[in-house]
Amino acid sequence: MSANASYQEIGEIFDRHDSFVILSHVRPDGDAIGSQLALAFSLEAAGKKVRVINEDGLPDNLRFLPGSDLVELPPAEPLDVEVAIALDTATKPRLGSNALNAASKAKLWLNIDHHKSNPAYGDVNHIDSSSPATGEILYKLITALNLPLPDQTRDAIYVAVSTDTGSFQYPSTTENTYLMAADLIRRGLDVGRINSQTYDSHPYRRVELMRALLNTLELTGEDRVAHWELTMATAEKLGLKPEDSEGLIDIIRAIDGVTVALFFEELPDGKIRVSMRSKDPRVDASEVCGQFGGGGHALAAGIRMAGPIAEAKQRVLEAVCAAMPVA
Amino acid sequence: MSANASYQEIGEIFDRHDSFVILSHVRPDGDAIGSQLALAFSLEAAGKKVRVINEDGLPDNLRFLPGSDLVELPPAEPLDVEVAIALDTATKPRLGSNALNAASKAKLWLNIDHHKSNPAYGDVNHIDSSSPATGEILYKLITALNLPLPDQTRDAIYVAVSTDTGSFQYPSTTENTYLMAADLIRRGLDVGRINSQTYDSHPYRRVELMRALLNTLELTGEDRVAHWELTMATAEKLGLKPEDSEGLIDIIRAIDGVTVALFFEELPDGKIRVSMRSKDPRVDASEVCGQFGGGGHALAAGIRMAGPIAEAKQRVLEAVCAAMPVA
Repeated sequence: MSANASYQEIGEIFDRHDSFVILSHVRPDGDAIGSQLALAFSLEAAGKKVRVINEDGLPDNLRFLPGSDLVELPPAEPLDVEVAIALDTATKPRLGSNALNAASKAKLWLNIDHHKSNPAYGDVNHIDSSSPATGEILYKLITALNLPLPDQTRDAIYVAVSTDTGSFQYPSTTENTYLMAADLIRRGLDVGRINSQTYDSHPYRRVELMRALLNTLELTGEDRVAHWELTMATAEKLGLKPEDSEGLIDIIRAIDGVTVALFFEELPDGKIRVSMRSKDPRVDASEVCGQFGGGGHALAAGIRMAGPIAEAKQRVLEAVCAAMPVA
Repeated sequence: MSANASYQEIGEIFDRHDSFVILSHVRPDGDAIGSQLALAFSLEAAGKKVRVINEDGLPDNLRFLPGSDLVELPPAEPLDVEVAIALDTATKPRLGSNALNAASKAKLWLNIDHHKSNPAYGDVNHIDSSSPATGEILYKLITALNLPLPDQTRDAIYVAVSTDTGSFQYPSTTENTYLMAADLIRRGLDVGRINSQTYDSHPYRRVELMRALLNTLELTGEDRVAHWELTMATAEKLGLKPEDSEGLIDIIRAIDGVTVALFFEELPDGKIRVSMRSKDPRVDASEVCGQFGGGGHALAAGIRMAGPIAEAKQRVLEAVCAAMPVA
């Protein structure tokens, strides 16, 4: 079944089954973990047996979420569960091979997501690309079905939506998103505390990383292209974790007059990861990244390519400058 | 009259008079300019004559607001207006001496603010410290009175409230704040564009300032006190404007384990400005700043003190460390 299932049809699946494993994508962000916890605590409060599995476990920066220790690394043996639920994950392999193995005994796959590109790989699917976050779909689902909405679910939904909208700023934010936030406060959300925990609590090494990146910042292409780099030597010296660099590219994307921002990063396997952001629809980041085997969206795309980093930079910057409109 | 005037009483002032000058505080931020423009366009649409004056004029970073060229520097001669309206300004002198001179012929002073400390210096006052921004008070006022709410007012209110709540994050944010944002979207607000204009468009020199500050960052007091400095030499080299450093102290306030963050800045007159942020209610920033003739709130305070900067740093850091609770 590839057509979107209604909330009611999903509710019937919840009614008819007793045990669930909830999954989300590798390198989980706020919407991934927030969505997993939100649905898990709602189903648990409805009397269901729930396991929450993530290929990469719980990142440190989301450990403040109430009940977050529910998130487990995949066990070696497949779980005895009836239903597997994939949340916020555009393709099935993005769930991770160990997580897929853990869920391999499930007889029914439910796939709930807001990524337009999701090919509806579940047995039952609900893809709503008009929602700015999977957490907002779950809010609509839980309230529509009158499922319990315990405090852990309330806080997890808020963090999922807040982080996926850049704190209610991105164009995907709608009237309903703000109405949802108002309702979560009505339900007792401590908005000051949860935002402080989400945004005001970074490890010192993230600030050291910011400094290291800024010290490599360069402008090119008539100052319309900003780029910086992170070498393995710096990553090792600072003891960085993958989540430390999350969102930092926004610092240089926000420079007035800059059209394209680029982050070049050496990976342990010798490859170079390139993150690209465009502020001008005439410069299609996914097209430029596609020239090097990468991909993504028009305004946010990426590449994983051969090094060394100096050579990768030169090749990609040339392609970016060639794609720039005449000033 | 020092008791709070009702919306109805304020509406009667608008009805009975024809000409208004709208003022706000020196070094205006988003809530100051946003509030001035919001009320000005609403009153203009209601057929009133309105002038918008700010002691320091319109800052570059708010020039994107539709209709912002309405904001004038104070004219040399007092304006012929019936009513002066002070918005978002805790004390009358904070309006600036030239602006006060421009408004000196007004027969009636209306004072609308959300600062708890506002001594109600108007003839008619409405102080609502439960509102996270003066812009939100104006939204309530305009909608309660059924005044026109043109697009310029809509956008200005959003920017006023968004900037004064750290994008809907601070503890002052309420259910009504989110309901207001939902209503502004219903009225046609382009949420993606206005946030991009508010937050994603900094001059390059702000990023250079960030780099310069990070390169002076130090931790002390068992790593619970973070501080950085800006010298006049750096400010001149980068050609900084006052608004460039706005909010940057949040970068070091957000470090895990840091209780107090400090920003030391050399001023052109040789004095040192100190900005202090505390994350722990047991460390009262206003008390520590008070030891040096400064003041403010418990979690955010400041000092203007004698230099040189190295000496000021040593004295203030000693006082901060003495005020820290035992770890």
